Amino acid sequence: MPRIFPVDEARPDSGPPPIFERIAIVGFGLIGGSIGLAVKRRWPSALVVAVDRKDVIETAMRMHAADVAGDDLVMGAECDLVVLAAPVRQNIALVEQLPDYLPGAALVTDVGSTKAAMMGAAAALPGRLAFVGGHPLAGAAVGGVEAARPDLFDGRPWMLTPGTGASDAQVGSLERFVEGLGAVPRRMAAADHDRLLAHLSHLPQLVVSALMASVGEAVGEGGLALSGRGLADTTRLASSPPGIWRDILQTNAAEIARALDELIARLQAVRAGLDRDEAIDRLFTAAAAWKRRMPPR
Amino acid sequence: MPRIFPVDEARPDSGPPPIFERIAIVGFGLIGGSIGLAVKRRWPSALVVAVDRKDVIETAMRMHAADVAGDDLVMGAECDLVVLAAPVRQNIALVEQLPDYLPGAALVTDVGSTKAAMMGAAAALPGRLAFVGGHPLAGAAVGGVEAARPDLFDGRPWMLTPGTGASDAQVGSLERFVEGLGAVPRRMAAADHDRLLAHLSHLPQLVVSALMASVGEAVGEGGLALSGRGLADTTRLASSPPGIWRDILQTNAAEIARALDELIARLQAVRAGLDRDEAIDRLFTAAAAWKRRMPPR
Repeated sequence: MPRIFPVDEARPDSGPPPIFERIAIVGFGLIGGSIGLAVKRRWPSALVVAVDRKDVIETAMRMHAADVAGDDLVMGAECDLVVLAAPVRQNIALVEQLPDYLPGAALVTDVGSTKAAMMGAAAALPGRLAFVGGHPLAGAAVGGVEAARPDLFDGRPWMLTPGTGASDAQVGSLERFVEGLGAVPRRMAAADHDRLLAHLSHLPQLVVSALMASVGEAVGEGGLALSGRGLADTTRLASSPPGIWRDILQTNAAEIARALDELIARLQAVRAGLDRDEAIDRLFTAAAAWKRRMPPR
Repeated sequence: MPRIFPVDEARPDSGPPPIFERIAIVGFGLIGGSIGLAVKRRWPSALVVAVDRKDVIETAMRMHAADVAGDDLVMGAECDLVVLAAPVRQNIALVEQLPDYLPGAALVTDVGSTKAAMMGAAAALPGRLAFVGGHPLAGAAVGGVEAARPDLFDGRPWMLTPGTGASDAQVGSLERFVEGLGAVPRRMAAADHDRLLAHLSHLPQLVVSALMASVGEAVGEGGLALSGRGLADTTRLASSPPGIWRDILQTNAAEIARALDELIARLQAVRAGLDRDEAIDRLFTAAAAWKRRMPPR
């Protein structure tokens, strides 16, 4: 196996010793790029290897979010941590290719918004490639590497879903790594994660998209011109591009369908109670009580 | 008829001549109080008469939102404009009592969030009391007179739904009055108003309340602790108190039920399309297109 890149003698050896010396980030968008920037912030001596399309890695290099970059998975060959940061179904496809490109031992993780499908795919990895699923609960209104920020994960939860192939020590290393990026690690079973995110993220996104489409069709542009801040805030997520959502929805369809069924049943009950003070009071009181228990933002 | 209050000689006679000399505002909460403040801002010489419970009008006087105040409808007897600014069903009850308290001619309007039920009640007013329905599309997260602001209506639409009893000149006067409060008047039939608001306001409120209750019940306080800005923005309206909503929902139940039916059907279609890229693309593309047509906030 040829050395893909020599260890760069010129890199600073100041700063704390990195938990992982060479980190490949495959898929260098908002999350991948922010991981690169956060790694360089915390461990200047760690080597960040960006793998993505040519135009993306050019931007990544300009932003100093990576030390070396290329458009080939072979770039990850000598890394001790490989982070899959493409959309979910691409990550799943990548996991199947990894054994051909990574001849040595490595810890592999991902940052996808659904976990059970990915854990299923990762179960087929050879023993030398330990896998721990990951999902940083952080984002921004605009995606892409240009929007990457070193502080994107500061104070945010980072879910970790250990599989069967990773030792406790490896999970612990990954926990300390995401702490170094500013996040708060949180272990959870993949199925629990997917059920939780179906409610916290996937259901709200679908409801907002459906509401926006319904309201727009019903009142048209002239009607929307009369809308206020309430509808504007409620529908902020309606701007989400379909790209990553295709993958999220299809890899978590069963949990999302269950959550949608619950909500549809509740809306039918609301409709049946429109003429009764008690039914209205009950709905508004329950909603306000849960809203108060949400973290202040 | 005794004079309820002498015209206050000390009031400034500077500023533009007011469109209405004496304005009674019945129900002095966020909207009523803000009308009082906006009137004093625009026409310092106009007399603002606040009618509400004793504790509310004490606050109103302390805030200089009214010139005189009392807890009896008879306070409106010598006013040329009477604004009903209580919750919708209270306004409807007030309209029935007005003829007993207002012996002379006056223009009567309201600020309720639904219009057809109110217009029906107002049709029974005697000829001397002309009625034009009104609805300023303005609000704030917190209600009550303490939250009243003179600029609450600046640049916001103020819907006017003329009934059969008001002349064109009277509707025109009310248009110039709400313009003086900073708002943009907009005439519309009551039925069209109620259908529009069912979609722009009532449906989104119910959907947010139902979503918050569903998500809260499903994930509990521990799950909510992991939620992010997306869910926080989406559910901002979940804090709405049931008080005014009882009246809004019950006086617009038919339009809201229709809007709910449309949304429920759409959510069922979304559920059926969770496993198809094309269905997901169609939903997200439509939602984002309507979102772009909303006014920037």
